[in-house]
Amino acid sequence: MTDPSHAGSLLTIDVAAIVANWRLISQGVTPAEAAAVVKADSYGLGAEHIAPALAAAGCKTFVVATLDEGIALRSVVPAAVILVLNGPFPGTEAEFAAHSLVPVLNSLGQITAWANFAKAGSGAPAAAIHIDTGMNRLGLDEAELDRLAARPSVLAGVRPILALSHLACADERNNPMNEEQHMLFTRLAARLPAMPLSLSASSGCFLGRNYHFDLVRPGAALYGINPTPDRPNPMAQVVRLQGKILQVRDVDSPRSVGYGATYRVTGPGRIATVAVGYADGWFRSLGNRGHGMIGGVKVPLVGRVSMDLACFDVSAVPPSQAHPGALIDLIDPDFTVDDAAADAGTIGYEILTALGRRHHRRWLTGAEEAQT
Amino acid sequence: MTDPSHAGSLLTIDVAAIVANWRLISQGVTPAEAAAVVKADSYGLGAEHIAPALAAAGCKTFVVATLDEGIALRSVVPAAVILVLNGPFPGTEAEFAAHSLVPVLNSLGQITAWANFAKAGSGAPAAAIHIDTGMNRLGLDEAELDRLAARPSVLAGVRPILALSHLACADERNNPMNEEQHMLFTRLAARLPAMPLSLSASSGCFLGRNYHFDLVRPGAALYGINPTPDRPNPMAQVVRLQGKILQVRDVDSPRSVGYGATYRVTGPGRIATVAVGYADGWFRSLGNRGHGMIGGVKVPLVGRVSMDLACFDVSAVPPSQAHPGALIDLIDPDFTVDDAAADAGTIGYEILTALGRRHHRRWLTGAEEAQT
Repeated sequence: MTDPSHAGSLLTIDVAAIVANWRLISQGVTPAEAAAVVKADSYGLGAEHIAPALAAAGCKTFVVATLDEGIALRSVVPAAVILVLNGPFPGTEAEFAAHSLVPVLNSLGQITAWANFAKAGSGAPAAAIHIDTGMNRLGLDEAELDRLAARPSVLAGVRPILALSHLACADERNNPMNEEQHMLFTRLAARLPAMPLSLSASSGCFLGRNYHFDLVRPGAALYGINPTPDRPNPMAQVVRLQGKILQVRDVDSPRSVGYGATYRVTGPGRIATVAVGYADGWFRSLGNRGHGMIGGVKVPLVGRVSMDLACFDVSAVPPSQAHPGALIDLIDPDFTVDDAAADAGTIGYEILTALGRRHHRRWLTGAEEAQT
Repeated sequence: MTDPSHAGSLLTIDVAAIVANWRLISQGVTPAEAAAVVKADSYGLGAEHIAPALAAAGCKTFVVATLDEGIALRSVVPAAVILVLNGPFPGTEAEFAAHSLVPVLNSLGQITAWANFAKAGSGAPAAAIHIDTGMNRLGLDEAELDRLAARPSVLAGVRPILALSHLACADERNNPMNEEQHMLFTRLAARLPAMPLSLSASSGCFLGRNYHFDLVRPGAALYGINPTPDRPNPMAQVVRLQGKILQVRDVDSPRSVGYGATYRVTGPGRIATVAVGYADGWFRSLGNRGHGMIGGVKVPLVGRVSMDLACFDVSAVPPSQAHPGALIDLIDPDFTVDDAAADAGTIGYEILTALGRRHHRRWLTGAEEAQT
C-alpha cells in the first residue's frame, strides 16, 4: 500500500455507507433475504474490508464469481454462505468443498461433475442451480432442465439449496423482457424439486415484491450505483476519488495539450496536470469529455488522458484552490460514479472495477471523525 | 497468485521477447543509450520480472512515473539509474534520495524544493530537468527556463544529469509537430548548462538519428506495441491472453445474448461463454465489436461484455476445439494487442495497463521449452 504523501491519488471507500445501502435493501425486500455481491473484489473496492462489515450487520450470504475469490473471501467471513457464480472448472470440485463454497452449477456438465464428486466423497456438498431465462450466457435452458428432470438421481446427488436466474434488462423497469423472464423463471423452476429461488440483482430489488423470491443479490447498489436510472438514486454514495495536482500552467497564448494535440487552449487560462491516468483506470475515453470538481466547481478534462496524467482546465477556480499538491475530486457525492461513467461512455460498474492499484486507499468504517 | 486450474484466464508474458525488443532498439540508436520505461508496473506486465531481465541484458537506465514505483523497482535493479517522471510531491524529497531515485523536475517549484533539500543535506543528489516543448502537461516552458537561467545558483544546487522532453505526435512520422518540437527542444536546452539530452520514447526511436540525442526512452515498443503504426510492426509480440470457456450453448432458435439483449442469434449456431469480463480489463467497449481466436479462426464477441464473462459466437469452430475448459486466445501473435485495441476503440497501451488481477500470470524467460 502506498504512503498517502507519495501517492498521486486518494481513494476513500465509505464502508459505513455500503452497510447502510445493504440495510436499506434488506429492509425493502423483507421477508426475502438480501445477499451481498462482492465479486471482482467487491467491484474493485476491497472485499476483505467490506464483507466482514456486512457480515457484522447481518448479511449471511455472499456472492463471488470465481473459486479464487471464494477462497479469499472464506478467510474473512468464516461462517457465511458463499455462492460462486462461475461454478467449478473440471477438477476443482474438491477445492470448493474444502472451503465450503457453494458452486453455482451452470450446465449439465457441471452438475454431472459435481454429482460424481459428491458420490465419491462423504455426502453431497450444497450447490445452486442456474436457470437461464434469457441472458444466454450461463445456466440451463428448458431442454437441459427436461433432461435433468429425467434423471432425478443426478440432482439428488448435488443437494441444491438454491435455484437462481439473472435479469437482462432490470435497469429498464418498463422493459417487457423483465416480466417474460419472471414468468419463465417461475415456470422452469417448477421442473426442479422445491427449493429457495433467487432472480434479482440490484435493479431487480426495485421491480416490486414478486421479483424478490427468497433471496436477492444486490451488488452495484451497495456501492452507490443507481439501481433505478430513470429515478433519483436511493443509495448513499460510497466512493471518493481525488487526484493530486502536480503542476499548474498559466497559458496566455494559444497552444495544444497532450498527445495528438487534440485540445487547443485559446484564451488566457490555467491548466492543471493531475497525477491520474488511464493506468489508474481513468479511462482514455474521458479525453476531452471528462470532468473533475474543485471546491464545488466542475472543471473539464482537456486533451487526451495519458497513462499517468490527465489535464484539467482550472481557469474557473481560484489559484488558492488549484495549486501543486491540491486535490481535485474525480468522483465524489456531487459528481458520482454514474456521472463519471456517463462521461466515459460506460457504466458505473466498469468505472469501479477499473480503479487502479496506485490509488492510496482508505476505508471509512463510521468510527472516524466526520470527514469532508 | 491464482492456480492455473482455478483461473478463468491465463496471461503469458514473453520476457525474452521484451529483452529482444530492447536489444533491437538499443542497437538501432547506438551510440545513444536506450533506457527502458517500466512505469505502471511495466505497462501492467510485471516490472519485478521484466526490469531485472533488461538489466541483465545491459539496460542501465529505467523510467517510472511515481515515487512508489521507483522504490519498488530499486529493490530489483539495485545498480540502475531510475528516473521518476512525476517528480517529487512536496515533502517527499528525502524518500527519493534514500532510494537513489532521480526525480524528473517538472516545474520551478519542484526545482526550488529539490535545491533546498540538497542544500540542507550533504551535497546535491542527481536530478533531471523536464523541458515542455508542446505537450503542455509537465515541464518548464521558455519563460520558466529564462527565470531559471537568471538564477544559476538554484540549478547548480540540483546537479542535473539529463534534460528531457516528450513528443506529442511521434507515432505520426509526417506530423510537422515532431520537427517543431525537435527544434524547440534543441533551442531551449541551450538555456541550460551542457548535459545529456533525451527527447524520444518508442515512436521517436524510429524518426531518425537526430531524434535520438543521448538517451531514448522506449516503453510501448518493448511490450510489442507497434511504434510505427503506418508500417509493419518491427517488434516481437510479447503478450498472450487466453480465456477459458465455461459453457457452450447450442442455439437453434432466435434468442438474445447478454445484458440489454443487444445481440440476437438468428440461425443455428453455438455460443461460448468465457470467464473473462470487464473486471479483467476486457473492456466493455468490446461488446459486439471484439474478437477472439480459436485454432486460427477469428470468432466474434457477441452481446455486451459482463463483469466476469464474455460470449463468443463459435459456430465456425469445431466442437472439439470449443468446449468447456478449452481456451480462446484474446491476444496472441496473430491477433495482437494493437488489434484488440482497435476493436475497443483505444490504444494498445490501455489494453495492457488494464489487464486485471484475476488472470493467472506466467513469465517466459526463454529457458522454458518451446510453447505454442
